[in-house]
Amino acid sequence: MRILILGGDGYLGWPTAMYFSTTGDEVWVIDNFAKRKWELEEGIAPLLPIPTLHNRIRRWREATGKTIHMRVGDLNNHRFVYNLFSEVKPSTVIHYAEQPSAPYSMQNRNTAVATQVNNVVGTLNVLFAIRRHCPDAHLVKLGTMGEYGTPNIDIEEGYIEITHRGRKDVVLYPKKPGSFYHLSKVHDSHNIFFACNVWGLKATDLNQGIVYGIETDQTGLDIDLRTSFHYDHVFGTVLNRFIVQAVTGYPLTVYGKGGQTRGFLNIRDTLQCVELATRNPAGPGEYRVFNQFTEQLSINELANKVKTVGSKIGLDVKISHVNNPRKELEEHYYNAKHSKLVALGLKPCLLTEEVIQSMLMSVNANRQFIDTLQFAPRINWIGRQEQDN
Amino acid sequence: MRILILGGDGYLGWPTAMYFSTTGDEVWVIDNFAKRKWELEEGIAPLLPIPTLHNRIRRWREATGKTIHMRVGDLNNHRFVYNLFSEVKPSTVIHYAEQPSAPYSMQNRNTAVATQVNNVVGTLNVLFAIRRHCPDAHLVKLGTMGEYGTPNIDIEEGYIEITHRGRKDVVLYPKKPGSFYHLSKVHDSHNIFFACNVWGLKATDLNQGIVYGIETDQTGLDIDLRTSFHYDHVFGTVLNRFIVQAVTGYPLTVYGKGGQTRGFLNIRDTLQCVELATRNPAGPGEYRVFNQFTEQLSINELANKVKTVGSKIGLDVKISHVNNPRKELEEHYYNAKHSKLVALGLKPCLLTEEVIQSMLMSVNANRQFIDTLQFAPRINWIGRQEQDN
Repeated sequence: MRILILGGDGYLGWPTAMYFSTTGDEVWVIDNFAKRKWELEEGIAPLLPIPTLHNRIRRWREATGKTIHMRVGDLNNHRFVYNLFSEVKPSTVIHYAEQPSAPYSMQNRNTAVATQVNNVVGTLNVLFAIRRHCPDAHLVKLGTMGEYGTPNIDIEEGYIEITHRGRKDVVLYPKKPGSFYHLSKVHDSHNIFFACNVWGLKATDLNQGIVYGIETDQTGLDIDLRTSFHYDHVFGTVLNRFIVQAVTGYPLTVYGKGGQTRGFLNIRDTLQCVELATRNPAGPGEYRVFNQFTEQLSINELANKVKTVGSKIGLDVKISHVNNPRKELEEHYYNAKHSKLVALGLKPCLLTEEVIQSMLMSVNANRQFIDTLQFAPRINWIGRQEQDN
Repeated sequence: MRILILGGDGYLGWPTAMYFSTTGDEVWVIDNFAKRKWELEEGIAPLLPIPTLHNRIRRWREATGKTIHMRVGDLNNHRFVYNLFSEVKPSTVIHYAEQPSAPYSMQNRNTAVATQVNNVVGTLNVLFAIRRHCPDAHLVKLGTMGEYGTPNIDIEEGYIEITHRGRKDVVLYPKKPGSFYHLSKVHDSHNIFFACNVWGLKATDLNQGIVYGIETDQTGLDIDLRTSFHYDHVFGTVLNRFIVQAVTGYPLTVYGKGGQTRGFLNIRDTLQCVELATRNPAGPGEYRVFNQFTEQLSINELANKVKTVGSKIGLDVKISHVNNPRKELEEHYYNAKHSKLVALGLKPCLLTEEVIQSMLMSVNANRQFIDTLQFAPRINWIGRQEQDN
């Protein structure tokens, strides 16, 4: 297949590019390096510096003999997008190229608007370019479980059958996103659903849980093939942050009561899921939604797991409940379905003690690079006047 | 009250401004005249030319002695928005300032993106400016019944209680919008709901049906106080278009089978509804949704009403079923609730034969200005390659 990966410089985009390169597919990546600029704005950096995409692609060719094609450009520049799709004519488009952080989006008006415009317009441009240049291409779009919020009923995969006053319909599952970032993904989902209905496009929306992990089979091939590992309060996902905090002896920063329950998955399972979606594409006009995670855990359960494993390897792990910077329920019902990817063959790599221990050891080997000033949340959902620009 | 009307130059914005000016409220209007530019892009014009907003405000003062304050600016310019809200500190913000046409949004990539950016970013800027400068202000936002689409279950007012696998929740009513314009309103609704939840803002989302009518008590005071009356395929609402077609002897252009059922209301009821929402504001943190229409009719019923009344006054009205340029169900269940505004005191001005006759007579008096080339739909939902810029 000819696979075009949007956002190929990112935490998930780069491992995905290497993964499909090994399976014999023709892989193209694009990026505009916006994420690296956003990191500079926040004054934060991944645990280890990440070589340029140019150099990683070069290194990949040296290590494996395989070519990853690259173009540099911005999805918000529609001429770039149209030219790209006209040149590549991909059979699959895997779309990671969005501003990915809820806290980033909640800083102020500027970052809220920038997040929604970047994500919504980028995705609209992709939809129009597919319609124009490769209408048979399958769009695999990364959404988030955070689109659903925490409803008091079971979360289904994208759609729900409602019986109301004696009549039935199957409708898009009602969403309650918790940040301007999560809202941008809900906007995307509605736009993609419409494009499938009206133009007959094929799309799979992967409502992904919270990803953790450092390594995939391919990142391990060479030190320069690593992917970015964020543990900071803006771009760091919660387990990655807890692992780094545990290694430094900094208390794990649980927001509020910690009863918040979410779906989680290993970065290796992201690759499995994206491949399963890619190899089993949606049909013409089909807008398909998969909930992409492997297990549900509360933040307290997650912290306790890290504490337990940490103590076994001699780390003194403390847990600290800090004021919740977010506005969210801290104790709630949560039961999210996630059977569609399993039905396609997903073999989950669950969060075992071995996995946690391996992450702790890996981060510990690089403990001299940890910046403990990156842990504490500094972006509040309520907002601060002086940050409002 | 100090009332700030966003989009005060428009079909509904201008009559709203005059209406509240007569009730002793302090009225401010803003506009950037984008709608007049969009008309020029399409090569279309309202039935009668509309004086500048400056001149209408001057004429209003001469006719009534009352002042309508005006600022000229774009909601997408956030410094303009912040300065405006800082200066005016409104108690109510009535927000009409959006690209209002589904066909306009469906022309090509450029108009789709422009519509979503204009509407979503404008509304985000308003939300942030309210939070910053007048957090107690009540936002009255014009949405559309088209956000709901045509589900096979009853349409409720904004929220629906779902019982699912033995559990219950009340959630935002699931939406199925039918154009990039309608999608922009759904995006707005999600963003506003979130701002109410997180910041405690007060908002009423008025999901308005299809408005018809030419005159209000205030537009009738002077010829120069008229509001824009569109009968074209882009900005003309369906009944207004039928009336003009009937007057010229041009067949009424029913799209497809004509079984499409929608909610309708008279422009006079728009003013009543907006006033009821304004005088009975939402509370802090409350996101309230009213379905703002007075009666449901199918397009065929509407065409037949015009035909019946037309023949009584000597017009030979024909009905023509043209290929539907839209992608929509042409025969469907439709039962939309609209009791909340009635509960607040709405006295509907229904579509009687007298109302239709009055519209026909009024348009007939200006029949020499009708441009019959504006009737036929030229924008197709499927899209055309050559228009894709």
